[in-house]
Amino acid sequence: MAIVGKHEDVTPEVYDDGKIAKGVEKRVLIGPDNGAPNFIMRHFTVKPGGFSPFHTHDWEHEVYILKGKGFLRLENEQKPFEAGDYVFVPPNEKHQFVNDTDDVLEFICVIPKYGN
Amino acid sequence: MAIVGKHEDVTPEVYDDGKIAKGVEKRVLIGPDNGAPNFIMRHFTVKPGGFSPFHTHDWEHEVYILKGKGFLRLENEQKPFEAGDYVFVPPNEKHQFVNDTDDVLEFICVIPKYGN
Repeated sequence: MAIVGKHEDVTPEVYDDGKIAKGVEKRVLIGPDNGAPNFIMRHFTVKPGGFSPFHTHDWEHEVYILKGKGFLRLENEQKPFEAGDYVFVPPNEKHQFVNDTDDVLEFICVIPKYGN
Repeated sequence: MAIVGKHEDVTPEVYDDGKIAKGVEKRVLIGPDNGAPNFIMRHFTVKPGGFSPFHTHDWEHEVYILKGKGFLRLENEQKPFEAGDYVFVPPNEKHQFVNDTDDVLEFICVIPKYGN
């Protein structure tokens, strides 16, 4: 059955050990629990100075920046992004989302069902 | 290789025959041309009074509303949505995105690679 929901009503998972990740909230908006057959839509909030893990895995990210600015840290470069940008991280490319600003960063990140 | 791009730099496909669809622009942000292995991220703009086709297919939509308001027309009901909402349309459920407001509607819609 079709679902319409508010992202802020989804309980977040918090990643904030300060070393591997900092100031990150992840909300799974659409996933296996809703009957999603192929891929998972998540909403991320990254506080000022926060970051996701600098890591790699064998699945891709398809991202849309909703609010704020930051940069994508890769092995040998950094790519800045801002609201209205899309970001594609292919499988097996080491990456990190960094909020080096004084404002909150928000983005949508879609992954295949087998990643998590 | 990772990609960062601006959605407004992508050339849109226009759907505007006034019967099947009206006032719709589709931008494929991330898809097979970028090496996306599993699913496709598209950006839609629907002008005031516009609508997507009222149709069904055997793949799902995972949607995030970026801007504006509207409603999801289903076979037997309508579900309103607004910016900040997520929308899941499972496979084989007849659906239409309608902008019945005076403002532009924008959303992200992700589909599996085999849908199009």
